[in-house]
Amino acid sequence: MSTDKITFLMNWHATPYHAPVYLAQKLWYFQDEGIKVALLEPNDPSDVTEIIGSGKIDMGFKAMIHTLAAKARNFPVTSIGSLLDEPFTGVVYLKDSGITTDFRSLKGKKIGYVGEFGKIQIDELTKYYGMKPTDYEAVRCGMNVSKAIIEGSIHAGIGLENVQMVELEEWLAGQGRPRSDVQMLRIDELAELGCCCFCSILYIANDKFMAENPDKIRKFMKAVKRATDYVLASPSEAYEVYIDIKPEMASPVNRKIYERSYAYFSKDLKNVQRDWEKVAKYGKRLGVLDADFVPNHTNEFLTWKLEGDSADPTGDQKRMLALQQDVANKGGFQRLDVKVVA
Amino acid sequence: MSTDKITFLMNWHATPYHAPVYLAQKLWYFQDEGIKVALLEPNDPSDVTEIIGSGKIDMGFKAMIHTLAAKARNFPVTSIGSLLDEPFTGVVYLKDSGITTDFRSLKGKKIGYVGEFGKIQIDELTKYYGMKPTDYEAVRCGMNVSKAIIEGSIHAGIGLENVQMVELEEWLAGQGRPRSDVQMLRIDELAELGCCCFCSILYIANDKFMAENPDKIRKFMKAVKRATDYVLASPSEAYEVYIDIKPEMASPVNRKIYERSYAYFSKDLKNVQRDWEKVAKYGKRLGVLDADFVPNHTNEFLTWKLEGDSADPTGDQKRMLALQQDVANKGGFQRLDVKVVA
Repeated sequence: MSTDKITFLMNWHATPYHAPVYLAQKLWYFQDEGIKVALLEPNDPSDVTEIIGSGKIDMGFKAMIHTLAAKARNFPVTSIGSLLDEPFTGVVYLKDSGITTDFRSLKGKKIGYVGEFGKIQIDELTKYYGMKPTDYEAVRCGMNVSKAIIEGSIHAGIGLENVQMVELEEWLAGQGRPRSDVQMLRIDELAELGCCCFCSILYIANDKFMAENPDKIRKFMKAVKRATDYVLASPSEAYEVYIDIKPEMASPVNRKIYERSYAYFSKDLKNVQRDWEKVAKYGKRLGVLDADFVPNHTNEFLTWKLEGDSADPTGDQKRMLALQQDVANKGGFQRLDVKVVA
Repeated sequence: MSTDKITFLMNWHATPYHAPVYLAQKLWYFQDEGIKVALLEPNDPSDVTEIIGSGKIDMGFKAMIHTLAAKARNFPVTSIGSLLDEPFTGVVYLKDSGITTDFRSLKGKKIGYVGEFGKIQIDELTKYYGMKPTDYEAVRCGMNVSKAIIEGSIHAGIGLENVQMVELEEWLAGQGRPRSDVQMLRIDELAELGCCCFCSILYIANDKFMAENPDKIRKFMKAVKRATDYVLASPSEAYEVYIDIKPEMASPVNRKIYERSYAYFSKDLKNVQRDWEKVAKYGKRLGVLDADFVPNHTNEFLTWKLEGDSADPTGDQKRMLALQQDVANKGGFQRLDVKVVA
């Protein structure tokens, strides 16, 4: 017998920034829309686009660069919305690792990456710095990059400012060491990309599922928009609901990850055209996408008024950096006031 | 494009007794067999048989009573092996709850259950004790039965001796209260079933997937048998590997859950014919299965010599109770020495 439950696979084990989908389930927003959803979590993030692209699972979360690559590899998926916009992403390291703000300090180091693309990105960067991919040792770490840094089995690893950096900061603090000993070589700066949008986390759907179930997808997105509105309006209260669903996540580290993720949540969930153009170009540069590749995203399932584009994305990114530093220092919830084009 | 990855869904968030499948992945046993497996975790245990039965996911873990009910509800799945044999299952409560060894003390109480069957079982039991289902209040708790008892939102809840009882014991100990304040009204005793096999945890497969991929399933079972052998031979070492994969599980409570699960692991993974007969009969009594229902299990994918049946299952169960009490008191790993029929 078939089931009308939509299967939705996370990009990672349950993480504070997944709050909108868990809340949409817990608070009956999916039910209010007349849909049923089964939320699933992976053991290996590298399974996600393959399983969704092959149609075994209907929908999920994944970063932009993976979403583009999935289509290029004949695992047809489409981004139907954004969860997190441009979280700062890069090579995360501790001050005593011997790594500095100079990319060339990675020479001879062991660098952890999740599944595949981190290595492709670092490999590609080496050529701008007079190095070769063999000048460093890439270590596949799955979801355990922070752990590998803590254990000392790698010198540094690819991570997010709002997740792995927080995990390492709190580990340092627990040892009486300064949180500021965690540093990041930002990939967008090293690669001169102009944004961290390659790592924007997206809502994706299998293309066949999407073609056959437009109404279900519209309803799904409506429910998660409602949950996102709730998270943005009442973040502390929403977090309490979240850890009530996931009591194993009720830790000070996760609370901080949630605070640090707050500013990255997309308010209107839209796919940002400018970001997709940049990342498609970057994907071609990385050799992951062919020259004639057409990006796979649509805003057609977002049935509310979308925000205008930022008038000053570069300035926004600078202000975002300062804002995140302030949240790191003081805690709490802050959002950037973005000016849009008229 | 299709994928040759087998999707395998847990019955619960990652739990110490899932060790064999995670180890088979981590230690390349699946790869050695030439198969690829994606391990997935649910957010709601009640999704599992529906998603596997509808063919969206290929395989997974589920308890015997659910596996039977899935087939009866036209979600065709078959048990292809056993993970845990007869873990003690029942109504878990604290001494100060007002509940006693007399079932009738549940009158007027709030009893938590996971998704559906716990309520069906308690409802059915009421009639033997001069009660009605409305004499107690059933509260659906998903995976958070222990949490609800701790918070006091329920008086008792359906749970396993090797999981929920351990969680509650450790919570009590953390408060300086005696671990022995956790008690269980065993469902097998209340219902006079003669075994806790209704809650044996099984490897299940979607029937169509099974029919089309017998070779993959044989290989899968070979890999998890190898991992089970490793767990049984070197439990401490195997646990270290497990929490290396799942660092968020590295807690004293989980270590104890693992110790308490050790004796329940099926050594040869076989489906026990006698248990299936008992539980099918029980399912008919519960009104979940029709009178002519044929149980859905097979040992045809187990390509090694299977153990004989126990010569004294009732005596084994008594010895198991004493053994588990000893493990609860002293920690460590013990297995029952089972005499088989000649």
